Amino acid sequence: MKKEIKHVDLSSIKDPKFLSSLSYGELDVLSADLRKYIIDIISENGGHLSSNLGVVESTIALCRTFDFSKDKIIFDVGHQCYTYKILTGRDFKNIRKKDGPSGFQKRSESIYDCYECGHSSTSLSAAMGIAEARDLKKEDYYVVAYVGDASFENGLIFEALNNLSKKTNKLIIVINDNEMSIGKNEGGLSRTFRKLSNTNLYQKSKSATKKVLSISHIGRFILRGLSSFKAWLKRHLMKINLFDLLNIKYIGIVNGHNIKQMEKAFKRAKTINGPVAVHIRTIKGKGFECAEKDNQGFYHGVGKFDKETGDLLKDESLSSWSKEYAKRLHEVMSKHENAVTICPATGLGSDLIDIQKDFPTRFKDVGINEEHGVILAAGLSSNGIHPFISIYSTFLQRGYDEISHDLARMNLNSTLLIDRAGLVGSDGDTHQGIYDSSFLYTIPNCVITMASKSSQISSLLEESMNNHGVFAIRYPKELFNKNKIEKDEKVEFGEWKELLAGEKTAVVSYGPIINKLVKEIKNKNLNITVFEAIYVRPILDKYVDELTKYERIIIYDVYSTEVGFANTLVAELVSKGYKGEIIVKAVPNKFINHSTIEEQRNQLGISIDKIIDIL
Amino acid sequence: MKKEIKHVDLSSIKDPKFLSSLSYGELDVLSADLRKYIIDIISENGGHLSSNLGVVESTIALCRTFDFSKDKIIFDVGHQCYTYKILTGRDFKNIRKKDGPSGFQKRSESIYDCYECGHSSTSLSAAMGIAEARDLKKEDYYVVAYVGDASFENGLIFEALNNLSKKTNKLIIVINDNEMSIGKNEGGLSRTFRKLSNTNLYQKSKSATKKVLSISHIGRFILRGLSSFKAWLKRHLMKINLFDLLNIKYIGIVNGHNIKQMEKAFKRAKTINGPVAVHIRTIKGKGFECAEKDNQGFYHGVGKFDKETGDLLKDESLSSWSKEYAKRLHEVMSKHENAVTICPATGLGSDLIDIQKDFPTRFKDVGINEEHGVILAAGLSSNGIHPFISIYSTFLQRGYDEISHDLARMNLNSTLLIDRAGLVGSDGDTHQGIYDSSFLYTIPNCVITMASKSSQISSLLEESMNNHGVFAIRYPKELFNKNKIEKDEKVEFGEWKELLAGEKTAVVSYGPIINKLVKEIKNKNLNITVFEAIYVRPILDKYVDELTKYERIIIYDVYSTEVGFANTLVAELVSKGYKGEIIVKAVPNKFINHSTIEEQRNQLGISIDKIIDIL
Repeated sequence: MKKEIKHVDLSSIKDPKFLSSLSYGELDVLSADLRKYIIDIISENGGHLSSNLGVVESTIALCRTFDFSKDKIIFDVGHQCYTYKILTGRDFKNIRKKDGPSGFQKRSESIYDCYECGHSSTSLSAAMGIAEARDLKKEDYYVVAYVGDASFENGLIFEALNNLSKKTNKLIIVINDNEMSIGKNEGGLSRTFRKLSNTNLYQKSKSATKKVLSISHIGRFILRGLSSFKAWLKRHLMKINLFDLLNIKYIGIVNGHNIKQMEKAFKRAKTINGPVAVHIRTIKGKGFECAEKDNQGFYHGVGKFDKETGDLLKDESLSSWSKEYAKRLHEVMSKHENAVTICPATGLGSDLIDIQKDFPTRFKDVGINEEHGVILAAGLSSNGIHPFISIYSTFLQRGYDEISHDLARMNLNSTLLIDRAGLVGSDGDTHQGIYDSSFLYTIPNCVITMASKSSQISSLLEESMNNHGVFAIRYPKELFNKNKIEKDEKVEFGEWKELLAGEKTAVVSYGPIINKLVKEIKNKNLNITVFEAIYVRPILDKYVDELTKYERIIIYDVYSTEVGFANTLVAELVSKGYKGEIIVKAVPNKFINHSTIEEQRNQLGISIDKIIDIL
Repeated sequence: MKKEIKHVDLSSIKDPKFLSSLSYGELDVLSADLRKYIIDIISENGGHLSSNLGVVESTIALCRTFDFSKDKIIFDVGHQCYTYKILTGRDFKNIRKKDGPSGFQKRSESIYDCYECGHSSTSLSAAMGIAEARDLKKEDYYVVAYVGDASFENGLIFEALNNLSKKTNKLIIVINDNEMSIGKNEGGLSRTFRKLSNTNLYQKSKSATKKVLSISHIGRFILRGLSSFKAWLKRHLMKINLFDLLNIKYIGIVNGHNIKQMEKAFKRAKTINGPVAVHIRTIKGKGFECAEKDNQGFYHGVGKFDKETGDLLKDESLSSWSKEYAKRLHEVMSKHENAVTICPATGLGSDLIDIQKDFPTRFKDVGINEEHGVILAAGLSSNGIHPFISIYSTFLQRGYDEISHDLARMNLNSTLLIDRAGLVGSDGDTHQGIYDSSFLYTIPNCVITMASKSSQISSLLEESMNNHGVFAIRYPKELFNKNKIEKDEKVEFGEWKELLAGEKTAVVSYGPIINKLVKEIKNKNLNITVFEAIYVRPILDKYVDELTKYERIIIYDVYSTEVGFANTLVAELVSKGYKGEIIVKAVPNKFINHSTIEEQRNQLGISIDKIIDIL
């Protein structure tokens, strides 16, 4: 009679030590249970799904081969660490919630987290630093970087690999290869990694060898009986891949769902003096049919979903700013043949799929290559094409130099469509969109705008094409009520709108929150002027003059830190000799952890109530 | 009798059309004349020497093969464009001087300049954009990116190559391979490119083939007579290089000093539909013995020099801030075993050669890989090693995301040694160091400091190791009088110094210029208080309180744009209810062209005189 396998109580795990006592059969059961648990919790809390379902067995194998209470592991991008979080005893039920665990590695959470990633392709450089520090201090433990194949597209990892090729520090790179990145991208993204790793080289070598052999008589003889030779050659030439070129030892390809096989590979990797790459192949979304079949990335990052049917649960009365912007951008692309849309692997997230479909030659997904994307845009613009660069606020940081040195310095006409601007809620500190306006403020020649209503979008998009150099249009992650969609309105360049006329006190604010603010002020019958600063930059002189007529000015900015717009407006007022009272209620210049956007605003003292209180 | 060859009057060239009428013999004379002319002018004006001497023939060959009044060429990094500038009719005598030509391509100068580079590795992405724009508009001309081998180290160009592999747009990449970057770097920099391009792969393939052949009888037979086979294999496998992996056609290697040979290669490249790389090999510094022999990079960027002896002319009474900082950093490295110095290929420029020599395991030149360098530092710091990141202000822009997302967010102890902060003079707008303080101001948790005297350096370096997270120490390009070196002084964390005590008016300033300001105020017997804000950030509350006692506050900042320090101090004063007068005299937030630093200050209205005028 077959022994019944006991299930591990996942919510009571304290650390991964228990794993060593389990049989491979028991580990299979554990894997299945982990998948179910992840699906259960993420279907409620939202988070990254597909990648986490893919890494269950490899995380178990790593935790059995290494002791990460002293060995160090860094998960690249960080969002595939859910199994690791469960095995290292976090309160997984509350992941991504206020005071619950972060959706990424977090040093303050556990000794098992030695570093924190959120943006792509940083793990290898960080692991190199950690390994070098270990060797300088003559300490003894293993350092592991766990990197998805998509991260191998980014320039940062090439810089790390280039530098690694000169190093002798022991360091293990686990390449989790699922032939996907966020979504399957025909001809793009992860293809490159695979290509660099072997196929093409094999093709080329094969054909070169064929030529070599065909020129000699003996060679022609061999060619006729080539089949076994071909197999042998393939096996060996396959290993001449990028890692060989870079002098990095290579073990692979290992089945990333076979714990025993991976343990063998990881144990071998441990014995190698110097950098070594272990290449495992996994199935993204494994164990959840909709996610396995998904080649668009719908199940990459999810909100609530039905764990039986896989249906993504959405409130149909709400729309996202991404969707509204994408719809209008589609119209602009139809109207202007010189418009091009560029995005760094965020096409699905920013709802650009229809644009990709309908304008294939004018839609450019550059992969997780923000720097390249910005300069590609600069090249296009320098030659008469208008680029719309669709990008998340947090990833725009990667392009700071390129926006300055290329786009803004040459004053090249271009539109930055900055998605997820402002507080982002449960993704937390690595993904906050509260800095872009402030850092764009440090770059000359940048226009910065933010609409409060979808009816302003078309006007902003059109205006951005009118020779203003770099023109940023920001929009937030928060959702809005579809019923509120109004008739398109014209927004003139640089103009603010006086939404309420009062005396003595003027509030300057912008973005969707201003609608709620106006409503509250009206409800309370307050005698307050409200200016909507759709143009956050430039600040026209006439509005500064206008403001100086008030006794009290309140700058209310929930979408950006105080450093850019708020402080600049203060300085402008002061330069006019303004002597009244100025109160700044903006996002403080801090790193802000995960919780809901509302909770974050409350915590920072910038909720609507707080403003109403001081009016 | 041999015909005497006429020399071309280089200063009267209007455009490169005359080149087509010259024989190869005449072109050789022209090449020699161009070298002499470049040496003549640069020995007076300063500028980039070695790289420009290396590219003379290839620039001529390009200008004869293409018509760059309609074809487009982008020089990567841009500083090797002097021959191009002469051949396209610029006022080369005045290069890098006020109102003279820039040391880089400049669109406003000539129709021959279609794009502008200053930072490394941007040209390919830009050229891709230009070529895609051409094809979208159905126009017809060639696009050429001229890239040095050192630029192939940077992640940006890998991002471009990855994307290029999916493209079919006609585009010619000229790889100028001189086995150098700025200086010859043992085991580093340009080695990687060479390695990627062939050698190692050939080695590997050779050995694999040997194994393949040795297993069969017929194979063993071939092995015995392998010599001709080896030669054949080498010729063919050599071509299986990085470009093959990426599906990019490859022509090379061509002698970069043989105009005829290059013309043949460029003409062939013109016929290829799609991206093609032409690999030329040149000698950096060719024709100027000191520069040819220089493997440190002394002749990469030069000031005045003796064109006969090659002696670099320096005023021995002056010292540079780079030198003074490097000297003290050497002391810190001696004292603290947990200190590490990281630089991105700027070791010579920042005078770190002695540190490299004396602390080989703790000095890390990461090549032109700023992003990687910052994260390497973060990894080191996360594991108990204190990194000093020595970097030019303008290149720090490349690390914006990494400083924020990695160093500052995790509050990792690290020192940014920001060289060339403030106005940089003749390098011009691509290299200005006036933005770093402002953009660091947009990142939480960053300390920013700047000393006015070399006697403050040691104290700042030591303090930066005391658990403050990211600690930036800025220093300018300007030189200072060696006689002024004083005894070390202690600078407490966050403290400002009251250098002069007066009434009514207080000036807040910092950096070396404050010494001159104080002297002028004393000379004129003005009743003015002067605060030295060595700590530009944080601004301690007690100083804001102290300032509010004055009727008038002048913020004088010649080292940074107004966006960061000046506007923040204004906002702090306003938040305290200050009603006096505040005058900001800081660098305006603009891009500022080449001329001397003094000329730039005058032009911006921030010279000492202007401040004295309003006191």
